[in-house]
Amino acid sequence: MRVRVLGSAAGGGFPQWNCGCPNCRGVREGRIRAAPRLSESVAVSADGARWVLLNASPDVAQQIAATPALQPRALRDTPIVAVVLTNGDVDHCLGLLVLRESQPLAVYATTAVRDGFLANPLARTLARSPAHVAWRSLPLGAEVDVAGSGLLATAVAVPGKPPLHLDGRVTPGAQDNVGLRLRVRGASRVLAYFPGVARVTEEVLAALADAHCVLFDGTFWTSDELTALGIAARPAEAMGHVPVSGPCGSLAALARLPARRRLYVHVNNTNPLLREDSPERAAVHAAGVEVAHDGLELDLM
Amino acid sequence: MRVRVLGSAAGGGFPQWNCGCPNCRGVREGRIRAAPRLSESVAVSADGARWVLLNASPDVAQQIAATPALQPRALRDTPIVAVVLTNGDVDHCLGLLVLRESQPLAVYATTAVRDGFLANPLARTLARSPAHVAWRSLPLGAEVDVAGSGLLATAVAVPGKPPLHLDGRVTPGAQDNVGLRLRVRGASRVLAYFPGVARVTEEVLAALADAHCVLFDGTFWTSDELTALGIAARPAEAMGHVPVSGPCGSLAALARLPARRRLYVHVNNTNPLLREDSPERAAVHAAGVEVAHDGLELDLM
Repeated sequence: MRVRVLGSAAGGGFPQWNCGCPNCRGVREGRIRAAPRLSESVAVSADGARWVLLNASPDVAQQIAATPALQPRALRDTPIVAVVLTNGDVDHCLGLLVLRESQPLAVYATTAVRDGFLANPLARTLARSPAHVAWRSLPLGAEVDVAGSGLLATAVAVPGKPPLHLDGRVTPGAQDNVGLRLRVRGASRVLAYFPGVARVTEEVLAALADAHCVLFDGTFWTSDELTALGIAARPAEAMGHVPVSGPCGSLAALARLPARRRLYVHVNNTNPLLREDSPERAAVHAAGVEVAHDGLELDLM
Repeated sequence: MRVRVLGSAAGGGFPQWNCGCPNCRGVREGRIRAAPRLSESVAVSADGARWVLLNASPDVAQQIAATPALQPRALRDTPIVAVVLTNGDVDHCLGLLVLRESQPLAVYATTAVRDGFLANPLARTLARSPAHVAWRSLPLGAEVDVAGSGLLATAVAVPGKPPLHLDGRVTPGAQDNVGLRLRVRGASRVLAYFPGVARVTEEVLAALADAHCVLFDGTFWTSDELTALGIAARPAEAMGHVPVSGPCGSLAALARLPARRRLYVHVNNTNPLLREDSPERAAVHAAGVEVAHDGLELDLM
């Protein structure tokens, strides 16, 4: 399996359009050791020809422009055969509306995520013809063949929440937020893609235990990262993201996993992990864990 | 008035993610004389401090990243005080959902365009608090003060159509598609911004007659540009865009205007005008008309 990180930042990217925090200001002005990052999304392929996007970021056009393997080979064409959504967050779904223009595409989502998206009249821009976007079922715990791409995906329910724009309007449920276990048909090595995890539970740990490579939610370093800056009222966990640090943080759990590569994705612009020379980055590296960057390529062969 | 073209391409940008036409392939491979372009949007300011976006392109984050004047000056901040929408097309509205993150913003739109957008549950991501996005009326033919920015805008109904995702679901009307006449309070010079015009009528010509600068719909060179390539079933006019060339085309009309600058914006990826060395580009220049490019700055003082 070939894996390419198209974007490694949380929603809004890094720097974020309206953010003047030390990280965002620093990277804009070239004063800190950090690279800009687009909104989180990952491309995977079994054969290097047909690609599947894991989530569709608002930055997807820019991501395709930076990735020759995802560019058209004919008059109107795309090597992207499918998108698999892990939840209904704007930063994971908005890119579907960028991928319009009549291109056939299979979108895999849980019923809750699909229904949340299709309630938008804007979604009809993806339904120009019967051959346009086809929504496919993503059941919990059952392996599905992703659009004949040679990839098999299993969705695992993980702690999370409905997207902000549906908060209080829908009943929260197990289908709101999933992680994905992916493998190539006939192969056993597993990529675990868990970009949004509110709590590290036994079920989450079980889903990561035999993975060869883990891409994990690295949104916040601490629970109070945004509240301390005065730019949010709720702790990280209430926003759907377990912090990296602390006794119940994700780093303690990832450090104990046997996976060959363990990487943080979906890193928020306020996270000190973004600075290559920060003590937080050093602590993560010391635990054998990495911070993914845009354009990073992995191979699970 | 300061004017900056943030994006000069039609929806999808140039090159377009799924397009392998000679223009898109050529610019991707660096084999033609043409510059990449983002989706169409323009920023205007009366004082150089408070900026108003004319339409919100899906590429708005990338556009802000390329434009220091639009970047935050404080912890969470934006010099963008308002967005004025000319229609409900995805490529003019999707950027509103990128401009989330609780930033106060005034959005001016006709009732039809506003209602079309607000029917989307996704729009609630812009309604996190009463101080978040405020929708303001954009009546036809009446000058409005744009969010105290020092700019005055008048919407002019022009031939067009409802956005594709509402086609056949709403009754077409005069509020579906407008051009804008903009001036600085106390000044007389007018910027005419008409990025989507299906036909050049007497009313359109009257709205352009006294403008100092005209930004006009340059989507297609010919009526059959997409049908000849086999990538659309309908002529340009039916998609809401009068072609540039021909006896009823926009160039013949723009060539006769007294405006000091007349520029095409919203240029589709298939349009031969994108090539700097094309005969079509030479014909436009010979008529005293220009093709806008991303980052172009104008000053109406």
